[in-house]
Amino acid sequence: MEADRIYNFNPGPAVLPLEVLKEAQGEFLNFNHSGMSILEISHRAKQFDEVLEKAKADVKELMGLGDDYEVLFIQGGASLQFDMIPMNFATKEHKGSYVLSGSFASKAYKEAEILGVGEVAASSKDVDFRHIPTQDELKINPEAAYVHLCYNNTIYGTEYHYIPETNGVPLFADMSSDMLSRPLDFSKFSFIYAGVQKNLGPAGTVLVVAKKSLLEKSPETLPTMLRYDTFYKKNSLYNTPPAFCIYMVGKVAAWIKAQGGLSVMAERNAKKAALLYEAIDSSEGFYKGHADKDSRSFMNVTFRLPSEELEKEFVAEAGKVGLGGVKGHRSVGGMRASIYNAMPYEGVAKLAEFMESFRKAHK
Amino acid sequence: MEADRIYNFNPGPAVLPLEVLKEAQGEFLNFNHSGMSILEISHRAKQFDEVLEKAKADVKELMGLGDDYEVLFIQGGASLQFDMIPMNFATKEHKGSYVLSGSFASKAYKEAEILGVGEVAASSKDVDFRHIPTQDELKINPEAAYVHLCYNNTIYGTEYHYIPETNGVPLFADMSSDMLSRPLDFSKFSFIYAGVQKNLGPAGTVLVVAKKSLLEKSPETLPTMLRYDTFYKKNSLYNTPPAFCIYMVGKVAAWIKAQGGLSVMAERNAKKAALLYEAIDSSEGFYKGHADKDSRSFMNVTFRLPSEELEKEFVAEAGKVGLGGVKGHRSVGGMRASIYNAMPYEGVAKLAEFMESFRKAHK
Repeated sequence: MEADRIYNFNPGPAVLPLEVLKEAQGEFLNFNHSGMSILEISHRAKQFDEVLEKAKADVKELMGLGDDYEVLFIQGGASLQFDMIPMNFATKEHKGSYVLSGSFASKAYKEAEILGVGEVAASSKDVDFRHIPTQDELKINPEAAYVHLCYNNTIYGTEYHYIPETNGVPLFADMSSDMLSRPLDFSKFSFIYAGVQKNLGPAGTVLVVAKKSLLEKSPETLPTMLRYDTFYKKNSLYNTPPAFCIYMVGKVAAWIKAQGGLSVMAERNAKKAALLYEAIDSSEGFYKGHADKDSRSFMNVTFRLPSEELEKEFVAEAGKVGLGGVKGHRSVGGMRASIYNAMPYEGVAKLAEFMESFRKAHK
Repeated sequence: MEADRIYNFNPGPAVLPLEVLKEAQGEFLNFNHSGMSILEISHRAKQFDEVLEKAKADVKELMGLGDDYEVLFIQGGASLQFDMIPMNFATKEHKGSYVLSGSFASKAYKEAEILGVGEVAASSKDVDFRHIPTQDELKINPEAAYVHLCYNNTIYGTEYHYIPETNGVPLFADMSSDMLSRPLDFSKFSFIYAGVQKNLGPAGTVLVVAKKSLLEKSPETLPTMLRYDTFYKKNSLYNTPPAFCIYMVGKVAAWIKAQGGLSVMAERNAKKAALLYEAIDSSEGFYKGHADKDSRSFMNVTFRLPSEELEKEFVAEAGKVGLGGVKGHRSVGGMRASIYNAMPYEGVAKLAEFMESFRKAHK
């Protein structure tokens, strides 16, 4: 870590690979011999087209997906997807079926409900979202337009460790906080999306990876900017796209490839997560994890301390030694360490050591 | 101009002030002693809050607006505003009334029409959008929810030189391509918006400046992300905002203030535009302006050459001497020089000289 930078455990916007930041900084005034900043170049320019196509190709290659999937970049955050998905795909006859595994999963459902086209397939709200609903708990209406999951729950620190069997109902997933963090059989999903500001780039675009068959035609009554076919037919260039965000996502995808792809990411992320869960499990109850063990996230590690006073002290002391952004979300309280792809092992090791010394000083 | 940068006449994304780019580059790895890049910092952090509040305050100060107006940052481009505006404000009884002065003005109307809530107040389509409809040409329905203008027409190179009298109907304006380029009595407008990628920053956010009374309450049936009250009540932080774009808009607004504000911008922009219009008008018909003289834009100067071959040659030769992005939009053809706030006088002078020498070589 460079002397003046901290280890940033924020949940998103979040840490980005330092190599990627330096590369972007180096070419900030003159992108690829264009004589312009990437911020200034036309989205219709050849140089930008190369950026867009390479980003799309790298994402699909990392995910092992073929020609039947398309990659789109859409503004508005995952929150706008919560609206666009039911508007494009659900009807009163064929509703969207939602698995409520946390805050964003529930927000997605709420939007479908506003539109009158949502139903619930399962919920772990009654156990404070400590676990991911199991296959047995899912009540999937075979007439549903789709089953919607939030694959990693940033706030609660839980993550799916299986891909639900939906018996032919298309599977949709918000992967905002674990996109490209590990290999999955992505071909089991019909529609995946991610606000990129957690694992893939700066805030300002959503990455959508979906079956072309879903994107080709949208309901005629929808306004232009809320139709997926607008983005699909115009290659995400119907209007000016969030060019800098796409450029950064492309750089991060290339960085993941250069590191060895999703299996290397998964291995690193598992090692990092193990360090923190071990620090929790070996703390003799000083640290209490929020998530049930079988639902623990590789991306967001949530835990409480014996008192709110100690939690405040933990945040303050951690900040003094360059460990930032560890305060948890108010709905869970305590701590949350977000350890996305770009968080180096050294940062997590330092946090684990800090946890141990803090515990010894306060037990 | 730095040796390896060109003069960038692109219509948007477009040239940004070099001082601003250098400042952003300098602090790219560590924003304001946070130990994080501005791309990595939480949108809930104190440092980001300062960025947001300063950007909002500077924009309002530059526009001379008071407490009855609010500044919002919304993703999706002006194109999503074309949808949100009628969804939030128009009904079948009180339609949105649109002045069709060019391509984007017409696209805005088309969206209202899809929603069944649009009507036309005036159009200059029959004269190929060469002029801005005059006050006398406007047929404003007193029952209209709003009158919608596109204040500068990037593609056709026309701009309003008066503020329409609407007899109490709220005035809405898309100012994507001339926002903060000159002083206006902005208090005559109820709702102003601008995709920032022309005059104010990198692509990825829309700046909305509107009367609070319009933003306080949106129709209950609308999904969350399509309601202005969502953005208003949460200070544009309902979900993760396009933080980097907001940061850059803030820097550009501060730069405009440091230059002397909108009157200085207007003076500079008028001088730059005069150079090019003079080159057209004194060309003995070699260059033909698209816009009628009384509707000429200070921001986008559009003109044709005697043949398409010469136009191709003009673009190629201009490129060789570091004058980029001068090719016009296909719907007008010929050339378009976009000379926003950040385009230095020297760049325009160089283009005017080039026009003269090209004309002499080919007349």
